[in-house]
Amino acid sequence: MTKHRYDTKSMEAHASWRGKIEVTPRVSVGSKEKLSIAYTPGVAAPCLAIAADPMMSYDLTRRWNLCLVVTDGSAVLGLGDIGPEAAMPVMEGKCVLFKAFGGVDAFPLCIRSKDTDEIVRTIALLAGSFGGINLEDIAAPRCFEIERKLKAVCDIPVFHDDQHGTAVVVLAALVNALKLTARTLEQARLVFSGAGAASIAVARLLMEAGAEDLVICDRQGPLYPGRAGMNREKAQMAAVTNKRGVKGTMADALQGADVFIGLSGPDVITAHMVRTMARDPVIFACANPDPEIDPDEAKAAGAAIVATGRSDYPNQINNVLAFPAIFRGTFDARASDINDAMKRAAAMALAGMADGGDLSSEKILPEPTDPRLKEIVARAVFDAALASGVARIKR
Amino acid sequence: MTKHRYDTKSMEAHASWRGKIEVTPRVSVGSKEKLSIAYTPGVAAPCLAIAADPMMSYDLTRRWNLCLVVTDGSAVLGLGDIGPEAAMPVMEGKCVLFKAFGGVDAFPLCIRSKDTDEIVRTIALLAGSFGGINLEDIAAPRCFEIERKLKAVCDIPVFHDDQHGTAVVVLAALVNALKLTARTLEQARLVFSGAGAASIAVARLLMEAGAEDLVICDRQGPLYPGRAGMNREKAQMAAVTNKRGVKGTMADALQGADVFIGLSGPDVITAHMVRTMARDPVIFACANPDPEIDPDEAKAAGAAIVATGRSDYPNQINNVLAFPAIFRGTFDARASDINDAMKRAAAMALAGMADGGDLSSEKILPEPTDPRLKEIVARAVFDAALASGVARIKR
Repeated sequence: MTKHRYDTKSMEAHASWRGKIEVTPRVSVGSKEKLSIAYTPGVAAPCLAIAADPMMSYDLTRRWNLCLVVTDGSAVLGLGDIGPEAAMPVMEGKCVLFKAFGGVDAFPLCIRSKDTDEIVRTIALLAGSFGGINLEDIAAPRCFEIERKLKAVCDIPVFHDDQHGTAVVVLAALVNALKLTARTLEQARLVFSGAGAASIAVARLLMEAGAEDLVICDRQGPLYPGRAGMNREKAQMAAVTNKRGVKGTMADALQGADVFIGLSGPDVITAHMVRTMARDPVIFACANPDPEIDPDEAKAAGAAIVATGRSDYPNQINNVLAFPAIFRGTFDARASDINDAMKRAAAMALAGMADGGDLSSEKILPEPTDPRLKEIVARAVFDAALASGVARIKR
Repeated sequence: MTKHRYDTKSMEAHASWRGKIEVTPRVSVGSKEKLSIAYTPGVAAPCLAIAADPMMSYDLTRRWNLCLVVTDGSAVLGLGDIGPEAAMPVMEGKCVLFKAFGGVDAFPLCIRSKDTDEIVRTIALLAGSFGGINLEDIAAPRCFEIERKLKAVCDIPVFHDDQHGTAVVVLAALVNALKLTARTLEQARLVFSGAGAASIAVARLLMEAGAEDLVICDRQGPLYPGRAGMNREKAQMAAVTNKRGVKGTMADALQGADVFIGLSGPDVITAHMVRTMARDPVIFACANPDPEIDPDEAKAAGAAIVATGRSDYPNQINNVLAFPAIFRGTFDARASDINDAMKRAAAMALAGMADGGDLSSEKILPEPTDPRLKEIVARAVFDAALASGVARIKR
């Protein structure tokens, strides 16, 4: 992979930090009296209250605000299967973002297994210790099955951020990009690079929001019914996308397309391909850390709007815009699920925040550090949870 | 169970705290530059460094200082099997103590299973995320098998605090109690109430330290070879204790005994039984929250030294004296195990701290809030780890 300008700085910083998170007491135990209340013998009373009604764990422990960030290390960033221990710097970083931008206590676990049922069982056995579960960097198609099975057995919300967090932010960015280039979601021709977890989740949420002309490409080119080399999820998507029946290569699919959405790997498209797209094309090159095309090259080839997954370029399609506020709203509502209504509400709130008078081709999304995210997006999610019947608190 | 004076205060405190721990960032992500170093794209560099050498996870993530506090909720305090969610107030409290008294980051997980192999597998799959494992409040005899199997499969130290933390503190207290009453460990007659995890671990460590005359009683009375109603662990202990062949009841065993060590449940012995013990008897009534005999009653019946498990009486035999400093020393040495040499070193360091000129029948142990614990006991454990060959850092 490419050497990045942050590599040396980041190595030095991580070596000096020796961990980006820590576990901090919220209470003092500096006297015998305080010990007797926070620990034995006083602690027996809250224990017995929860034994009588397990939902009291939301009132008497940190569960109400606690999110499990869990991975098997099989699809870390764009680095692939680097293993559980090596995934931890990303997981710790994620937990930092949860707290900094959502006020959510998040704790990282890396599971030493690649077996779907074993991963599901492990996480399910821990569900009583958390208020919600954020799946992270698990390879497709395993991640779909893990999410589906966990949702079936867990009594707390399960959210695969690489799928749904990304989908929320891409939808928000696309709403504004289409507005700036005078297009509609219903009419835009969208081409996807990648048929992994993120791509398929983005495609699904865009379709649910009104998109009709999508072509999803993997390394063998566009998906279409009956094509060779498709797993179950790809076959499902082939059946509901590519209505014009495009075959061949990514280059073929891109001819005349309005929008490219890359959630795959580095250097997938060329400047030449961008030039074959419709006028004022929109390029989302989200692969991390190396995008599908160099953003400056895409601009030079005529792209009206370019977004990437990186924090060091404009228009960062980074799900940090979504997941902290989504979990904030979910936890505030004590919601049992994070459903499509909540995801769409988050996307529309995000789009609206960027469209506050200064919408431009270099600013189709709010800044990740915008303090209003925690209020505006979380509130939209909270309201959608109440409206869709999954909230467990009374208004 | 008895209503305690701390019950109401503790319920109110827990309801206002809504969690005794939180997960706190150690780094700032308040700018794009900082985000790029702590998260993407910079984070790829430490990820790849750990992928190349997983031991680098101790240098680049929080693993070096991170302890898993894990239970199945089957033996919580003296309350029994109250379930995983209800165990959490104790687990959170434990994590507070780890940080406050040992500088250790500890995180609680309650597993929704009572199956030994499933619990072992679940914890083993998480071992790459932690520097050590503290088993907590798991019922005997399951806890023995869980600990044994985990030690076999994990590459990090595994410590069942209810066994070994308790054993360390009881040994420390006993060393000083015997000194005050002019006895030796080798000659003292010791009677145990309870044949659970803690009792058996205490008996084993005391024998390793030199004790020779032990009688362990369960609800059916003293253990002896061939007695009915014994599991594997009890049968093992029956074979190596009770050299005088005492049978009958706890009352029979106590006649003429020097020391009572209760790690069982409330109101097991009476003032009358204390009066049948040897002159100046030593009473350790550690059941929590309700001791085996009321401490004042034991004193009135002639006990020279009384200790309990509670923080609101003198001489608290609370393993908070041990586990934070033991893990501190273990983590500082990056030890692969917490072995008997390290436990004995911790006990002797603890005993020595209390025996600093003001040793008395009301003060046979240091205070749990003594700031020297983290230095003196941790240092002793660190040195023992180095001397016994389990340390993984160079001196």
